[in-house]
Amino acid sequence: MSYAVRPVAVVASPLTDPATAPKQGTEGGAEAWLTFEPDVLDALDGLAPGDRVILLTWLDRADRATLRVHPRDDVRNPMRGVFGTRSADRPNPIGLHEVEILALDGARMRVAPLEAVDGTPILDVKPVL
Amino acid sequence: MSYAVRPVAVVASPLTDPATAPKQGTEGGAEAWLTFEPDVLDALDGLAPGDRVILLTWLDRADRATLRVHPRDDVRNPMRGVFGTRSADRPNPIGLHEVEILALDGARMRVAPLEAVDGTPILDVKPVL
Repeated sequence: MSYAVRPVAVVASPLTDPATAPKQGTEGGAEAWLTFEPDVLDALDGLAPGDRVILLTWLDRADRATLRVHPRDDVRNPMRGVFGTRSADRPNPIGLHEVEILALDGARMRVAPLEAVDGTPILDVKPVL
Repeated sequence: MSYAVRPVAVVASPLTDPATAPKQGTEGGAEAWLTFEPDVLDALDGLAPGDRVILLTWLDRADRATLRVHPRDDVRNPMRGVFGTRSADRPNPIGLHEVEILALDGARMRVAPLEAVDGTPILDVKPVL
């Protein structure tokens, strides 16, 4: 049993190297542009600069077979299960990122702070409750 | 381009009807059991009762072609894009649910409050930061 997810947008960011990108947006995330697919633009209707949203990303470079990690890639931290960490390596490598919308321009949305690297697919956008 | 996600667990809940289930866990979510797949149990290592986690669900009854909705299914609310709402109907119908772990028993985890209905697939578990 599996389900297919498809990118609704893609990240354009000055961050390009997963090894040096911050682990969380609040630890040095960048301003980034998201470019949405033409067939989902109606789903953006009503969003505005200043809104805070949660982006769901597909961490396409993750190792989906990893079940236990040293948190924050630090071997001094004891190994634990990935469901207790924010490791990108996990069975379904979906990332959560709370950001502010800085600008909207047609199919493009400017957001910050985002730690996802250039080229990361976006699966969903949700309002912060 | 698409990616395959697969359930890592499934919800057992007294809530069975999406039409009458609460819209958010805080609006009357139930206690529910999650039963995890045998091959991902190592990913639970280190989680404990009292921990707060975010569950990612696959809302398998959603309409993925819907791009605009009346928020909260109330026609008095003006239509807006689904990326500005928590509607289940959206291109990639992934739900976010913040819950507390009440108990852990092998492959089973008791959580509350959860508004997802019985049989809903779970894609991921993440700690609340």
